[in-house]
Amino acid sequence: MNSFVELPAMVAACRASCGTVYLVGAGPGDPELLTVRAARLLADADVIVYDHLVGPDVLSLAGAQARQIYVGKERYRHTLQQEDINALLVRLAREHACVVRLKGGDPFVFGRGGEELEVLAAEGIRFEVVPGVTAGCGVAAYAGIPLTHRDHAQSCVFVTGHLKDGSCDLDWLALARPRQTVVVYMGLAGLSHICERLMAHGLPGDWPAAVVEQGTLLDQRVVAATLSTLAAEVEVAGLRSPCLTIVGEVVRLREQLAWFEPRADLAIPFLPAVPAELHA
Amino acid sequence: MNSFVELPAMVAACRASCGTVYLVGAGPGDPELLTVRAARLLADADVIVYDHLVGPDVLSLAGAQARQIYVGKERYRHTLQQEDINALLVRLAREHACVVRLKGGDPFVFGRGGEELEVLAAEGIRFEVVPGVTAGCGVAAYAGIPLTHRDHAQSCVFVTGHLKDGSCDLDWLALARPRQTVVVYMGLAGLSHICERLMAHGLPGDWPAAVVEQGTLLDQRVVAATLSTLAAEVEVAGLRSPCLTIVGEVVRLREQLAWFEPRADLAIPFLPAVPAELHA
Repeated sequence: MNSFVELPAMVAACRASCGTVYLVGAGPGDPELLTVRAARLLADADVIVYDHLVGPDVLSLAGAQARQIYVGKERYRHTLQQEDINALLVRLAREHACVVRLKGGDPFVFGRGGEELEVLAAEGIRFEVVPGVTAGCGVAAYAGIPLTHRDHAQSCVFVTGHLKDGSCDLDWLALARPRQTVVVYMGLAGLSHICERLMAHGLPGDWPAAVVEQGTLLDQRVVAATLSTLAAEVEVAGLRSPCLTIVGEVVRLREQLAWFEPRADLAIPFLPAVPAELHA
Repeated sequence: MNSFVELPAMVAACRASCGTVYLVGAGPGDPELLTVRAARLLADADVIVYDHLVGPDVLSLAGAQARQIYVGKERYRHTLQQEDINALLVRLAREHACVVRLKGGDPFVFGRGGEELEVLAAEGIRFEVVPGVTAGCGVAAYAGIPLTHRDHAQSCVFVTGHLKDGSCDLDWLALARPRQTVVVYMGLAGLSHICERLMAHGLPGDWPAAVVEQGTLLDQRVVAATLSTLAAEVEVAGLRSPCLTIVGEVVRLREQLAWFEPRADLAIPFLPAVPAELHA
């Protein structure tokens, strides 16, 4: 039990004087993929605390009154710095009525949103959660890759590909399964390791896999290949973070279902079901 | 290769005369969780083809000109009827400029969106995909359950719990893992079977699990229990579809993080971190 449960008077006093922190998902990139509620909160916020995965197009929806505070990715690489963000949110909630904590994608999927809320709850600060289109869903949609499909995948699993000591500490046995789609968030640095481990645990070398760079934005680029060729093809194409990796038979459906047309000069050749000239 | 790639003239003729089908995710229920793009398309659509999981609050955002066609759940239980929906979309695209195919949650997560697009692609009909907040993310957010958390879950897997011959044909070995959150869509009928199988594959009986009924709506009810007690408690509470089941250590965080207040008369008691009277 949390100690503050025993201190209702203190909590009540704080609530009377504090604002609300809205933990808001900014979606995968395209500002049109913000939820209606998120867009409204951005317009109304007194202060917005945002991460590196939140782009300028999304921030442009903030009201003129809103103070914008960047707490970007560098800080996320250090445990103490997450504590600094937590403390910042507590302080801002005591100074402002409407604090928006804005995170890329969905705040409860690899966003550390839960950790930040635990601190707010312990301090007796009121909060709400505004879910967003998680990068896995948004990027797959714009890449023309259904995450599930009755013929190909009856489950979809989201993991992060952060490297620790040069390898990813993932549950390979649970990931390397037929009829499953695996979505790896932020896995570019460990890509060759991830592909190699999935093959070592039973997925075939010709298993379809793709990496999407800047998904849902006009800069979007997609490299679709197989587990045995993906890392090399991604290196040739020169993809850079932020990227998302999708592994599974559903990746093949992109040949028919790709519909989103990013900037033409960034196009990476693949076999389209509909010749490009017909898109005119 | 698709045969229509060899028929560019026919495809071009169709594109010139056809409208666009927008495969749109309606989100988990709360109409505020529609994306900005989805809300705009609903306002502009000539015709909207929607499923049983799309509620009246979402449909109320449709423009007055929009014809609304219900292709509800009964039809989804029969393969032939999915073909009828596919044929309907093709016909509508030839009659209207803006056809919205509206599905609950995200259209690429258990929505058969990919199957419908394959048919449109084969007919040379232009389409776009508008991802939505998938039910797993939206319902978890409103239930105060982070799907991932550094201390509890480094992966999250989405499956459906549809019964076939009285049991679910799921990959239990891949699901019953520590440090993973399992989200079961539409699994109420198979709930006791699902809990039993997860325990048979190694998860302990006191492993946290919850069922959320009508998630994100004012009718939302949550039963949080353990794998060994969940099915009985859900039966006592009388939960009915649509429901979503979340299994994993993260379910315990709800004790601190529950924030959404549905209709008071529907409340199911649980131990709140902040006493109810402080929410006033």
